[in-house]
Amino acid sequence: MTLALVNETIKKELAAVEQLFTEELATDLTCVNNLIRHVSRFRGKMLRPTLVLLAGKACGELTDAHTVLATVVEMVHMATLVHDDVLDEAELRRKGATINHLRGNEAAVLLGDYLISHSFHLCSSLDSQFASRIIGRTTNQVCEGELLQIHHRNNLDLDEETYFQIISRKTASLCATCCLLGAKFAGASEVRISQLELFGLSLGTAFQIQDDIIDLIGEASTVGKTLGTDLEKGKLTLPIIHYLRTASAQDRARLRKILENGSNERIERIRDMLLVSDSIAYARNCAKDHVHRARAALTTLPDSSAKRLLDTMAEFVADRAV
Amino acid sequence: MTLALVNETIKKELAAVEQLFTEELATDLTCVNNLIRHVSRFRGKMLRPTLVLLAGKACGELTDAHTVLATVVEMVHMATLVHDDVLDEAELRRKGATINHLRGNEAAVLLGDYLISHSFHLCSSLDSQFASRIIGRTTNQVCEGELLQIHHRNNLDLDEETYFQIISRKTASLCATCCLLGAKFAGASEVRISQLELFGLSLGTAFQIQDDIIDLIGEASTVGKTLGTDLEKGKLTLPIIHYLRTASAQDRARLRKILENGSNERIERIRDMLLVSDSIAYARNCAKDHVHRARAALTTLPDSSAKRLLDTMAEFVADRAV
Repeated sequence: MTLALVNETIKKELAAVEQLFTEELATDLTCVNNLIRHVSRFRGKMLRPTLVLLAGKACGELTDAHTVLATVVEMVHMATLVHDDVLDEAELRRKGATINHLRGNEAAVLLGDYLISHSFHLCSSLDSQFASRIIGRTTNQVCEGELLQIHHRNNLDLDEETYFQIISRKTASLCATCCLLGAKFAGASEVRISQLELFGLSLGTAFQIQDDIIDLIGEASTVGKTLGTDLEKGKLTLPIIHYLRTASAQDRARLRKILENGSNERIERIRDMLLVSDSIAYARNCAKDHVHRARAALTTLPDSSAKRLLDTMAEFVADRAV
Repeated sequence: MTLALVNETIKKELAAVEQLFTEELATDLTCVNNLIRHVSRFRGKMLRPTLVLLAGKACGELTDAHTVLATVVEMVHMATLVHDDVLDEAELRRKGATINHLRGNEAAVLLGDYLISHSFHLCSSLDSQFASRIIGRTTNQVCEGELLQIHHRNNLDLDEETYFQIISRKTASLCATCCLLGAKFAGASEVRISQLELFGLSLGTAFQIQDDIIDLIGEASTVGKTLGTDLEKGKLTLPIIHYLRTASAQDRARLRKILENGSNERIERIRDMLLVSDSIAYARNCAKDHVHRARAALTTLPDSSAKRLLDTMAEFVADRAV
């Protein structure tokens, strides 16, 4: 079962999220509306809204607040995508031209700012400050993760612990928050909220490890976005970190040399080295371990179709090719 | 009286803002703390916190919420400065090297994101959603103003109405919000809150017109930041818009030709043309007109030292050289 099929089960709820997304971003300025129409075209998988909605359903009844929260987290995610495209100089994102490539870095910076601003604005329409506080804490962490990542750019001695610090903050924290808020606004107990939060954290970690593997060894034609961007930007990910720790002295020296040299063919050479090593398998196993933790966090939840779908999503995350 | 002297009268309150600013941004990550320490060094005039505090004092008693709000608006402002530096490729800001020049555009984008995220996070610590809602609405407007501005980049037919739409959203809206929130959290009546909001809006408009004049004809050594950046980035400001509407057909054609040609000496040539025209005086009069509106909005306020300081700030705005 793919994420698209999971989404099919909450089609109506996701349609409400898409509508609120569009309504919240609409302005009286034609030039701004045109930019937003373009960015909405490649909205993508709706992973984060789906987590909010299924976590809510798994713990109780969905409310209007869930639609608001699901829209807020999608806006936060879109903002990070738009700013990531500035950072990564990626020319393709989901088979559509990126905003920065079409309109320049300046429009991309401002559009990302516009999305993050609207996410907070929309969140502040809820009755209590609870969600605003959690969303603010989470976006703080996302920024920290990204800043830590660029701090370690081209650091060939990056260790696994720091890699996990980076992905935990930049990716997993938002997935954790989606599940936490979904559960909280369905009236779940503190214990249940913590279980859902742990589910999201583990799922988000597995998701990012898999994303990093795909960036290294995926096929651009299947995935629909520029690959090899992590290497281009000097970001070391789990398979490379593992290789540089465990391969023979000779192989390690060879990989370091390739990494230090900025040539265009190096991505193919690195791919070839990794594919005959056990470093991809190691990273896959790490992702699977986090999938296991995610699924374990769900075990005491009462059975429901939403619980089963969350379980399926976790399973899917470490196997996906896109 | 300069802004520095006004600030002297609320030194203790501003010190509390600086302290909260530092506390809110502190993290467990050394690399992030180092970036923040650098950005805090050129914090500048504290115009926006001063507006929050004086608007509050002019309407009643200051509370802890005023310190929070004053810190929030300074963070929002700092975020726009950091992202503006990316946009403008400015190499100097307040006589210090800009973040993007020192660390690259990526760090500047992320640091701006970090500041905006923390501003919302801090704002959500207040008891009610009121301030979060207003801050979110304002940052939406700031982004709209900036997006409208880059949409009209290199548009030599930009009219005055659109220029005022741009500066009203990108600059004046935040000054209006500072005064609105300062008054609201001091328990002011709705009428009084509206008067203070209008004061801030008018003052912010005058401030931006003057800023644009300085960018055209100021001296970099006095002002301490790169000048001529508006022209470099194809941003038409009030003196230029006026000149292109009112000068003789021959002079207009000459200015258009200079604007269309990207040479480095054009800023001097444009300056020379403007200085012998009445377009600088026209823009100065526009700024003074907004100063007049700002001061008029204060007239029914009961006399207080805070009211007199707000009045002085308005007077100062259109005369400052920095």
